[in-house]
Amino acid sequence: MKKNTARLELSKEEMQKYGYQIVDAIVEHHHTQHQKFPVAWGSREEMDHLFLEEAPEAGMEASKVLDFVLEKVMTNSANMAHPRSFSFVPGPSNYVSVMADALATGYNIFSGGWSASPAAAELEIVTIQWLLKIFGFPGKKGGGIFTSGGSMANLTAVVTARRIKCGDDFSKAVIYLSDQAHSSNIKAIRVLGFKKEQIRIIPTDNEFKFALNKLKNCIAKDRLEGLQPFCLIASAGTTNTGTVDPLSELAKICKKEDIWFHIDGAYGGAAILSVKGKQLLKGIEKADSLTVDPHKWFYQPYEMGCLLVRNHKNLSHTFTEKPEYLRDIEGNTSEINFYDHGIQLTRRFRALKFYMSLKTFGLKEFRDAVTYNIDLAEEVENLLRGSKSWEVVFPATLAVINFRYNPIKQNYNEKELDEINQYISKHVVDSRKALLVTTLLHGQVVLRMCLINPRTSLEDVTETLDLCKKFALEKEELMAGKV
Amino acid sequence: MKKNTARLELSKEEMQKYGYQIVDAIVEHHHTQHQKFPVAWGSREEMDHLFLEEAPEAGMEASKVLDFVLEKVMTNSANMAHPRSFSFVPGPSNYVSVMADALATGYNIFSGGWSASPAAAELEIVTIQWLLKIFGFPGKKGGGIFTSGGSMANLTAVVTARRIKCGDDFSKAVIYLSDQAHSSNIKAIRVLGFKKEQIRIIPTDNEFKFALNKLKNCIAKDRLEGLQPFCLIASAGTTNTGTVDPLSELAKICKKEDIWFHIDGAYGGAAILSVKGKQLLKGIEKADSLTVDPHKWFYQPYEMGCLLVRNHKNLSHTFTEKPEYLRDIEGNTSEINFYDHGIQLTRRFRALKFYMSLKTFGLKEFRDAVTYNIDLAEEVENLLRGSKSWEVVFPATLAVINFRYNPIKQNYNEKELDEINQYISKHVVDSRKALLVTTLLHGQVVLRMCLINPRTSLEDVTETLDLCKKFALEKEELMAGKV
Ligand SMILES: Cc1ncc(COP(=O)(O)O)c(C=O)c1O
Ligand SMILES: Cc1ncc(COP(=O)(O)O)c(C=O)c1O
Repeated sequence: MKKNTARLELSKEEMQKYGYQIVDAIVEHHHTQHQKFPVAWGSREEMDHLFLEEAPEAGMEASKVLDFVLEKVMTNSANMAHPRSFSFVPGPSNYVSVMADALATGYNIFSGGWSASPAAAELEIVTIQWLLKIFGFPGKKGGGIFTSGGSMANLTAVVTARRIKCGDDFSKAVIYLSDQAHSSNIKAIRVLGFKKEQIRIIPTDNEFKFALNKLKNCIAKDRLEGLQPFCLIASAGTTNTGTVDPLSELAKICKKEDIWFHIDGAYGGAAILSVKGKQLLKGIEKADSLTVDPHKWFYQPYEMGCLLVRNHKNLSHTFTEKPEYLRDIEGNTSEINFYDHGIQLTRRFRALKFYMSLKTFGLKEFRDAVTYNIDLAEEVENLLRGSKSWEVVFPATLAVINFRYNPIKQNYNEKELDEINQYISKHVVDSRKALLVTTLLHGQVVLRMCLINPRTSLEDVTETLDLCKKFALEKEELMAGKV
Repeated sequence: MKKNTARLELSKEEMQKYGYQIVDAIVEHHHTQHQKFPVAWGSREEMDHLFLEEAPEAGMEASKVLDFVLEKVMTNSANMAHPRSFSFVPGPSNYVSVMADALATGYNIFSGGWSASPAAAELEIVTIQWLLKIFGFPGKKGGGIFTSGGSMANLTAVVTARRIKCGDDFSKAVIYLSDQAHSSNIKAIRVLGFKKEQIRIIPTDNEFKFALNKLKNCIAKDRLEGLQPFCLIASAGTTNTGTVDPLSELAKICKKEDIWFHIDGAYGGAAILSVKGKQLLKGIEKADSLTVDPHKWFYQPYEMGCLLVRNHKNLSHTFTEKPEYLRDIEGNTSEINFYDHGIQLTRRFRALKFYMSLKTFGLKEFRDAVTYNIDLAEEVENLLRGSKSWEVVFPATLAVINFRYNPIKQNYNEKELDEINQYISKHVVDSRKALLVTTLLHGQVVLRMCLINPRTSLEDVTETLDLCKKFALEKEELMAGKV
């Protein structure tokens, strides 16, 4: 047999050079991204023009491909870590985690089972212990698993709740969530095969919190009809406003009604690291399961979600399957095979980045960063309140603030206000200088800033507000001209 | 407001040094891993001793954490890319993809929606087009999505099949798969809320292929009982033996019966790149959906799975949800938001590594590597057949070979053979020199080699067989001593 030449390898020198080039690009990007645009533009047509081609039979120099990618791909992507990327949930990330992730990828460590990587399984156990403690969950009985993100964590939670509370027959099962719950929850519920009739969307009060009385009525009615209330999903930090549902009260209801209590803290959970956040999140420790999303406010790069559970046996009970070719893989149960605790079999070593960034910066720096974010949003709120042009539509909560242009001198009606604020957002985004889109609160178009980037300064915010103001005035002139 | 100091940053110099160190470690590992052990050892107790601690409040030098990780974590992990890692599905990976992945992580590119990264969405579209063409799927109507792995791809397929074939009510739905289907399929089906009674495990014939006659009988019986056959999962390369189900015949049955035809080619699909593989995989182009797993035989690092579909609208139809804060994100439908084509909202930029490695090495080098793998397994088969000690239990198929120690001179009974082969595997693994575990075929304990690493040489195999032989003789002596 002849020696294989198709080894998909570069020479050692090329490998090093290639690696250094990529490191340089990342470091450079980190230090210059505030000068770049947070917003990307590009139509399908333009992108097709740049990238559409047949799969190449022949290769080309690694560095040429890299140059092309740096020039054309990376420049046509939004910078979620940009200090003026204010919308959705920004991804501030951190460099230590980036390189830690590369290390895990470079060694291609399989984090599915204990025997494939005892160290990877252990670091997942250890970092999940850290999170359990941070959130006040029982350390001994508690457990959890890292997932690709919040969507999969929420889905994993609902599967677990269903298995534990309903067993095999969930035809009468009913699940409760508020109209402010993140869409990934509904999506998970639908994916899992629940019918629309099994989902109760409970209205929220003026503060966007679960309306407790309505919830209780609904549960009672469902019981009367012979249905089985089995799961409730609360939000610890809604994406829209940062609102935390009344967790302790909901916990009581769930306990009394034997309902699985899931909390979606994908966005807001990390706020517990700060004093103010901890106050707001009281009751979070009472959940049966809790989604937190390290790739959001724990400053990790994509992808990293996490589901914590009060009783880790509920996960293994729900997700264990045993095929023949895994039969040699046994070991004692303290040696966790994470493929038995969730959906994925092959799993990358997500825990490493979390571990290395926490060891390097220390929890305190995370606490300080989260505290800074929350304080910054409050400072912005004060600033807006002190101005004659802006209305705070919802106060700064967990570093989210919703506001709109509504100058006190004018007396715009709701439709006009919607138009102006939509105009502001559109033109700010078109300028590419900041990512600031709108959301709807009580039917009003509002501007929403999510300030979880520790590298966002007050100046980043005020300059963006100045830009908004500029477009507001522009729109006002247009409107005046029309009349 | 004072300036934030908790920015979770290193200095520019530190960043560069840290990055280079990690690149050096990966490059060094790549070139020395064949001298390391493929197998890791470590009890929970040992790992606790190494790693268990409280979350540190204070940080420490980045390079110290890195040194500790290199010394303690990376050494306590199996090397799935080691040339003598023969079990399960090895992860040969490639360096270009590793660094491409780091680049995507370093820029923290969000691959959920078009507007966040037109280039990332486009590269996902382009590389999926490449795959569609490779697998003979319709390019225009076809589509697909990258997932965390084969498990999620299979799950995504079953959700889609259910939505398209059953709508909201799947109480009478029945799904068919063979007893050789990968466990991730059953797991997905259970996670999605099907009851045990809705799952038909069809026996396989002597070659481990779907028994067609039994399948037809089963479908007919289910129809008679008023049930709704809606999905069939075939394997294109079973994990155990590499067997490909009779795809064309199954396609016909599915067409006639209006059943969604899913093929799990997570393991074997990539074989289509070679002439022999293409022959074996005939009919794969007839699937409604097809799982392929780039992090297996397309030599990508973890995680990267893929689901291809004949009609991309079936994905968007199944997975689209539209919350308020995504309302500004519209665009025309050719500008794909991949969060509407699968379960994840936040998604990392998986396509980049696939794109960059294919551009760099060219498809031909992938073809040659896959061909080499298949030829190597056949060469090993011939070698085993020519020996007096080994029995080929199942011929080399898609680079998998199953064999056992069964010397012709002795007349061991089945129980003895099981014991000897189990002994061989245990002691090879204990030696840490090769990862070679057993599987069960027709109730017999056999040794299984999966030879998809292009850096595995014939010598790697023969030296491992010598090692096996040594342990076999040792066990024979023990057995003789007992008598
Ligand atoms: C409250 C909440 N839950 C869940 C998710 C979904 O998380 P992911 O995007 O990681 O899937 C989000 C994302 O923004 C969120 O804000
Ligand atoms: C045939 C087959 N399908 C699915 C899977 C699951 O893929 P993953 O481990 O990427 O989830 C495997 C894994 O070995 C497999 O061999």
